[in-house]
Amino acid sequence: MKRSVYIATSLDGYIARADGSLDWLEHDSGGDDYGFAAFMNGIDTIVMGRNTFEQVLTFGQWPYGERRFVVLSRTKTSFDVPDFVTARIEVSSEKPRDLLDSLEQRGACHVYVDGGGIIQAFVADGLIDEITISRIPVLLGGGIGLFGPRNSDVQLEHVVTRAFPSGVVQSTYRINDRACSLPALSPGADDLSSPTDEHG
Amino acid sequence: MKRSVYIATSLDGYIARADGSLDWLEHDSGGDDYGFAAFMNGIDTIVMGRNTFEQVLTFGQWPYGERRFVVLSRTKTSFDVPDFVTARIEVSSEKPRDLLDSLEQRGACHVYVDGGGIIQAFVADGLIDEITISRIPVLLGGGIGLFGPRNSDVQLEHVVTRAFPSGVVQSTYRINDRACSLPALSPGADDLSSPTDEHG
Repeated sequence: MKRSVYIATSLDGYIARADGSLDWLEHDSGGDDYGFAAFMNGIDTIVMGRNTFEQVLTFGQWPYGERRFVVLSRTKTSFDVPDFVTARIEVSSEKPRDLLDSLEQRGACHVYVDGGGIIQAFVADGLIDEITISRIPVLLGGGIGLFGPRNSDVQLEHVVTRAFPSGVVQSTYRINDRACSLPALSPGADDLSSPTDEHG
Repeated sequence: MKRSVYIATSLDGYIARADGSLDWLEHDSGGDDYGFAAFMNGIDTIVMGRNTFEQVLTFGQWPYGERRFVVLSRTKTSFDVPDFVTARIEVSSEKPRDLLDSLEQRGACHVYVDGGGIIQAFVADGLIDEITISRIPVLLGGGIGLFGPRNSDVQLEHVVTRAFPSGVVQSTYRINDRACSLPALSPGADDLSSPTDEHG
């Protein structure tokens, strides 16, 4: 099982303003999705922090199809979700390592981990294998950082960098060498509508 | 007159450990200088913070030729420098804007601003026109950040990104649209030995 992060940051390394707002992400992308659909085609499970999930619920659309979806929350055990949410939402209060263990036992192949504090916690525990950072050319001067404090260095392996006409620079780094490939989708399929449990 | 920054950071945005050490910069570059010599060929003036200058003095070589060289220090007015230093070292306690004004009056064309606190201060005051960041694929988890806190956003223009075989990813951003081109050097010249005062 592989665990990946796919996140946008400001040039000074913030993933959200101090109040959580993401207004600075809105810019003219020229219709480019920065590879998000291609990335999602390789994902069968999403793990998301509660705050990020509640932001996603305000977007009016659900970009995750019917993939297995787990919201991490210490306090809530269920959410009322709008009709556009096409996945069954599981809620978990497990610790990162325990959650990933149980997901692997259930056959998860490639897990997308999202949410500021969540990403920091998973990286700190050595539980992220690959991270893709899309840098927006703006300085915010403060906010919620992508990486937290740590006591020892982590060396990463650079995989690929792409620069987009909008000025976004996207780099992928490998931290651990773990892999999982989902079966190829049929042409034209734009999401994994029926993730199975056979890829673990 | 153009003011540029050319700096290496960790992936989490630090330019030095908390104690100022740069040991994490040592890696196998494959002999690549990451474009530093080409960058320096367009520079006629260096402004450097005292701490960074004192680190440079321990390197045993002087990569700045005879270019105009100003060390910013609030307390010292002169430095004892080793023989390998081939430039005359000026010391200034001026504020960033005042120093740049006086350099422009003296004919400076393209100023390279270096040093952690110095870069933060110059960026905060809107005094940097272009910044080139070479990201080393390592997480340090703490240290001296490249960018400081600020109260308003700054939009930048992405100029170019290059990925090197060593894993270093170098991006150049334009903040202000100011330009200055030094005259072409003769073939084989590796530094500007006689910057003149005619390019201001």
